[in-house]
Amino acid sequence: MDLHDLTRELHVKNDSKIIMLVADGLGGLPMQPGGLTELETAKTPNLDALAARGVQGASIPVKPGIAPGSGPGHLGLFGYDPLQYQIGRGALEATGIGFELKEGDVAIRCNFCTLDSDGNISDRRAGRISSEESAPLAISLRQIKIPGVEVFVEPVKEHRFVVVFRGQGLGDSVADTDPQQTGVPPLDPVGTDSASKKTAEVAKEFLRQAKQILAGHPKANFHTMRGFAAKPALPSMSEVYGLRSAAIAVYPMYKGLARLVGMDIVGDAKTLAEQIDVMKSSWDQYDFFFIHFKYTDSTGEDGNFNEKVKRIEELDAAVQNIASLEPTVLIVTGDHSTPSYLQSHSWHPVPTLLVSDCCRPDPHKTFSETTCITGGLGQFEAKYLMALALSNAGRMGKFGA
Amino acid sequence: MDLHDLTRELHVKNDSKIIMLVADGLGGLPMQPGGLTELETAKTPNLDALAARGVQGASIPVKPGIAPGSGPGHLGLFGYDPLQYQIGRGALEATGIGFELKEGDVAIRCNFCTLDSDGNISDRRAGRISSEESAPLAISLRQIKIPGVEVFVEPVKEHRFVVVFRGQGLGDSVADTDPQQTGVPPLDPVGTDSASKKTAEVAKEFLRQAKQILAGHPKANFHTMRGFAAKPALPSMSEVYGLRSAAIAVYPMYKGLARLVGMDIVGDAKTLAEQIDVMKSSWDQYDFFFIHFKYTDSTGEDGNFNEKVKRIEELDAAVQNIASLEPTVLIVTGDHSTPSYLQSHSWHPVPTLLVSDCCRPDPHKTFSETTCITGGLGQFEAKYLMALALSNAGRMGKFGA
Repeated sequence: MDLHDLTRELHVKNDSKIIMLVADGLGGLPMQPGGLTELETAKTPNLDALAARGVQGASIPVKPGIAPGSGPGHLGLFGYDPLQYQIGRGALEATGIGFELKEGDVAIRCNFCTLDSDGNISDRRAGRISSEESAPLAISLRQIKIPGVEVFVEPVKEHRFVVVFRGQGLGDSVADTDPQQTGVPPLDPVGTDSASKKTAEVAKEFLRQAKQILAGHPKANFHTMRGFAAKPALPSMSEVYGLRSAAIAVYPMYKGLARLVGMDIVGDAKTLAEQIDVMKSSWDQYDFFFIHFKYTDSTGEDGNFNEKVKRIEELDAAVQNIASLEPTVLIVTGDHSTPSYLQSHSWHPVPTLLVSDCCRPDPHKTFSETTCITGGLGQFEAKYLMALALSNAGRMGKFGA
Repeated sequence: MDLHDLTRELHVKNDSKIIMLVADGLGGLPMQPGGLTELETAKTPNLDALAARGVQGASIPVKPGIAPGSGPGHLGLFGYDPLQYQIGRGALEATGIGFELKEGDVAIRCNFCTLDSDGNISDRRAGRISSEESAPLAISLRQIKIPGVEVFVEPVKEHRFVVVFRGQGLGDSVADTDPQQTGVPPLDPVGTDSASKKTAEVAKEFLRQAKQILAGHPKANFHTMRGFAAKPALPSMSEVYGLRSAAIAVYPMYKGLARLVGMDIVGDAKTLAEQIDVMKSSWDQYDFFFIHFKYTDSTGEDGNFNEKVKRIEELDAAVQNIASLEPTVLIVTGDHSTPSYLQSHSWHPVPTLLVSDCCRPDPHKTFSETTCITGGLGQFEAKYLMALALSNAGRMGKFGA
């Protein structure tokens, strides 16, 4: 019996509202021994006021010691075991640029590459061609026609683009064509079962036509295909929790991840203030609101401690407006830590705050990496957060009699 | 997907060094209500200095409430789920005396016993015969020859010895011959599958010859066979973590356990000081160093609180020399608790300390059973310690994109 079997069986509906505010990469580290983290350095009177009313804990995104990407990080927060539900690379890439995958689609990450006159790869990334140069090239591949299959080509960035095949009976167990070395020709796509063999044939025809179209380009005269992946089969939040869920995000990746678990993508906000406005105006239509704030992650990735501190303070200012909506349950968390010190996602548990009228507050009056480890939620795997949210919202019956 | 699937996929290599200092049975208990534990009583300025720089937590060897033996205790620390990987009794006994099991070997724990004139067991342990008396008897069994099978006999202690069969196609599903009562004859070895039936035939022949050799001995005129076990199939630390690992231990059991996970057994140290010297001289050849300190366990087993305190202080003095090697990650932990109060292994979580430049230090300035429960690592299952070690050493990529 997994967690969704429990929530499927036990959830009830009511008029409660749940807000999950995800500050991407929220957790941090001191820059020097004895120092404070970004969150501890930031002035956060509003978060601290919530901490005084609420209960906090340290959320482990996947398992202790495992740093997640955005995909598993968010799946965990949405209550989907990130080890059970894995999103294939191609599907995540398509999701990340906002491509709406449908049941049966197969998405593929493609890299422009350079072939020498013998047909061997001389550069696996086409000299890291610029986005300005590569986007029109990717778009030129849209002229490729394959009978019985709808083909989509979407530029990503630099040498990367995405191809999606839409058709009947396409499998995704197809090996990469990138030989992972230069001086050899690209591999042919090979499928391991009959549905995937069909996909491999489609891919072969795509590559044949692409070679003709790209021929003569000095750098990007061919491309490889990697990470063949079907749309992941994730049950919807409506089915497993009985929630009408809205995602209010700025960046395509997070809209895409929310769409995979069946959230509606609401509004077209560009700022946190606009996101809050969208939430206000859609307040009656939804039970659950996922608000994504990107800049705590991107500043951490840049190693910009001071800027991350500022972004946390910006978030804190917005928290007041969010709390003023008086949701039944308000959660502030992150999908993982992104310490400026490491300039990358990390494995460290994420400070997480939950406020409701029945949350059993702990004694903490501030919100930080240090306080959360002795908070009332303890250390817990992120995947349990949704069950806590539902229970705090009065949306879960008891298990067993 | 288990933890080793993750570490296999995510580990990277670099020049970092990881030291895991295992103080066997480290955790303790107060001897009277309101008292201090052994670790809390000991003066440990060096461990406390590490605590100030590092992060601590309470390691649960197997699951809450489960006291482990040395086998599961160490497997957990090495990142091998002790419930998934179980070492058969015979294999553990052979490992414990330093016998190097090979693929396909079957190891068996044997007890000398006394048969009466009717062939019934009158003493299942041959009057707890002394080691001095039993060792030559065990060695006399080395004359046993069985066609097609190599036979090893190793004395253990008192009435115990180990037999290992080495040959083709030997199974280990063979029932014990010890009837667990007196007044009845020993059982015949019975195998449950064809490979194990072959082993049972070999064992029967061994017992037949042993009976002739031992006949006439007043106490040990026969023996039983228990815990038939093949060498456990454990993936190597090199394969699952990409680590070149060195075990620097004094006692055969811990060398044996380390060998089972593919560590090299390095040096022939007899003291902690010598172990540190061995580590220094092999510093460039390895990435991971397992240093085992036995006496925190043996003094606890003896119920000698004061002696355990002294041994912890001895350990503390050595910690300075270990830390001066400036490993990337330094871990101090135990495989389980051995409270003097209980004179046995116990289930209590083990104080565990991890120091690295990115460990996210907690506020504690001392290291003890009391501080560790509110440390930054929280309470965690020992099996996650290796993932934490790898991540803190910069040896793990992120999971998912």
